[in-house]
Amino acid sequence: MTISKGPQAFPRTEYLRRLAALKSEMEKREIEALVVNNASNITYLTGYTARSGYVPQAIVVSISQEEPTFILRRQDAPAAIHQAFMHRDKVIGYPEHLIGNPEKDGFDTVIDFLNELGIAGRGLGLELGYLSAQAGEKFKSRLPKARIVDCTKVVPWIRIIKSDLEIGVMREAAAIADAGIARAAEVIRPGIREADAIGEIARTLANGANGKPGTSLASMFLCSSPRTGTPHIPWSEDDFRDGSQINLELGGVRYGYVSAIMRTFSIGAPSDRLRRLHEAEIAGLEAALNTVRPGATCSDVANAFSRTIEKQGFKKDSRCGYAIGIDWGEPSASLRDGDMTELKPNMTFHLMLGNWIDEDFGYVVSETFRVADTGVEVLTKSPRKLFEL
Amino acid sequence: MTISKGPQAFPRTEYLRRLAALKSEMEKREIEALVVNNASNITYLTGYTARSGYVPQAIVVSISQEEPTFILRRQDAPAAIHQAFMHRDKVIGYPEHLIGNPEKDGFDTVIDFLNELGIAGRGLGLELGYLSAQAGEKFKSRLPKARIVDCTKVVPWIRIIKSDLEIGVMREAAAIADAGIARAAEVIRPGIREADAIGEIARTLANGANGKPGTSLASMFLCSSPRTGTPHIPWSEDDFRDGSQINLELGGVRYGYVSAIMRTFSIGAPSDRLRRLHEAEIAGLEAALNTVRPGATCSDVANAFSRTIEKQGFKKDSRCGYAIGIDWGEPSASLRDGDMTELKPNMTFHLMLGNWIDEDFGYVVSETFRVADTGVEVLTKSPRKLFEL
Repeated sequence: MTISKGPQAFPRTEYLRRLAALKSEMEKREIEALVVNNASNITYLTGYTARSGYVPQAIVVSISQEEPTFILRRQDAPAAIHQAFMHRDKVIGYPEHLIGNPEKDGFDTVIDFLNELGIAGRGLGLELGYLSAQAGEKFKSRLPKARIVDCTKVVPWIRIIKSDLEIGVMREAAAIADAGIARAAEVIRPGIREADAIGEIARTLANGANGKPGTSLASMFLCSSPRTGTPHIPWSEDDFRDGSQINLELGGVRYGYVSAIMRTFSIGAPSDRLRRLHEAEIAGLEAALNTVRPGATCSDVANAFSRTIEKQGFKKDSRCGYAIGIDWGEPSASLRDGDMTELKPNMTFHLMLGNWIDEDFGYVVSETFRVADTGVEVLTKSPRKLFEL
Repeated sequence: MTISKGPQAFPRTEYLRRLAALKSEMEKREIEALVVNNASNITYLTGYTARSGYVPQAIVVSISQEEPTFILRRQDAPAAIHQAFMHRDKVIGYPEHLIGNPEKDGFDTVIDFLNELGIAGRGLGLELGYLSAQAGEKFKSRLPKARIVDCTKVVPWIRIIKSDLEIGVMREAAAIADAGIARAAEVIRPGIREADAIGEIARTLANGANGKPGTSLASMFLCSSPRTGTPHIPWSEDDFRDGSQINLELGGVRYGYVSAIMRTFSIGAPSDRLRRLHEAEIAGLEAALNTVRPGATCSDVANAFSRTIEKQGFKKDSRCGYAIGIDWGEPSASLRDGDMTELKPNMTFHLMLGNWIDEDFGYVVSETFRVADTGVEVLTKSPRKLFEL
């Protein structure tokens, strides 16, 4: 009748360490309770990876309680009991009549819980960048005596430095991403449908690598001529053709953690322009990686890339990458000119050098890396080449 | 240098019809301009399906302009020019320095555009259920003279009635979903890893059916013993085992439109309890479908199901389904007791009879259906059986 704890990706001590770091930030802000509704932040603090966040749910971290309380839809509560590190009495399922109900929803249950906790007159942290405007209004109107503090970025700035255990998981995810690139190089051929190549790559990402299966499928982007100037368009219904270029972005996933990679493929000989851009970007990639060490800044890494490709006559408008971890991009540091975030050991980034130069022409290459004690560890290992098929 | 229009899923007339329905709702609310930031609503009104909505983007529908204006990140603008039905001068790319920038973001560009449009003193519709609380505050503070009207549900209530063209696409998606179920019945076997079965199913959903590939991969849920009491947990790293039950939920996708289906699988003979529940649910499913006709209500359909399974000693806490279309569930009508939405021809629903009875025991079955002129058309066609493998 009751569900047992499932296999845990991390030991309890790992979650308590993360929560201790969070409570320290809460104390600085004089916050008694923090409502975390961002799904990736919930994964970070509890281990929960089920996809129930399309309806209201949140964990409440109280400064005076060791474990957070997870309030979610009743039908998803068994998943929380099974996956999250907390004791089962820290999981509260709200009733089904709050789903699709215009009068009341699951955030009313969260607010009831905060009232029981005695939040009136005290500091309450909310993630106002992730709560909807409607939900934000509800918290304000139903908790008029709480002092609300926007904590949208608090958990992401803790997430940016990984533990060695998290790095281990991201290495596994990176090996899966590499397997996806290797499979793409096998299946992208003239006359094959793009959708069928995607099917093979998706299968590979689920199969995983080194005996470790993918635990989820992240979004994949396969942008072929004439769509190489745009990063996020879906694959087409066409066959691959002789002379086509294909920009591929994918990620391997382990326990919610993603390691991402991009590579460019050419069916037949690439154009001179594509080859020159590739060479400039690879030189820029290496210059950027050579800059990575504790004490350097995100800006240093981006500028090493930019200086290198500018010498070869290219420039890139978009940032050179971002912190990566649970559910892909983390909303904290960016690898961009002017981001003075200091690199620290075990920060992880997607060095994302996709360069969409014209509406109909772009090139992609990227690596997922970790800041090591004295330099850089590149987690993704695929050949840094323009794949000619 | 410029990108061409890609193949369009629907003719221009289809989008103008949708926009005319929306403008009629805007007139009722005395709204001059509507900012649509929900990604599925953007797909509905433009045809755009690229996955760029993790950064700010929105279309602005002006009562006085035939075509909406799409404001999005500059690097994603070529995808909008390629996919959306509008003329290219209706696509505005905002600069890359607004990404990951704590001071200003893409919604500032939207607000600048509204100011140029002359929104001061007039009605402005926002989707406050989809805008973050931070973004909602920005609109209010930067447009203090606009009369803001929450329009979160306006587009979804138009989406609920499909055109025949949309129904055609959902039939294609349903055939893909059926192919996924058929493949699952082939690959779920003792000793096979769950992840490898997922890989095969994902490949099938990308391959598609009847020569029509999947245009995206929707979330998939494979919940095996002891996790059959929860709907949204990811697959495990284990092999399937003799005696295990597997609840599977998946969707086929065409141009963003999803047709969804659930089926339950048993490796070896099912328990008596599972078999009795299956029989009750199939009887309830048929009773519910027999109720569907124009003029009946959502409540009627749900109650036909509930009455039937109650006679056999079961009940279901959660709603019996919801409107379905772009990106799966639509936030409008629910198949639940008390939802008095009147069924109309070409409404589409996911009759979702997943029944998570205990923490460690549940059963799933579902169909995607359309309200026909005189009854029901069930789009998914998989055998309505408890698959014994």
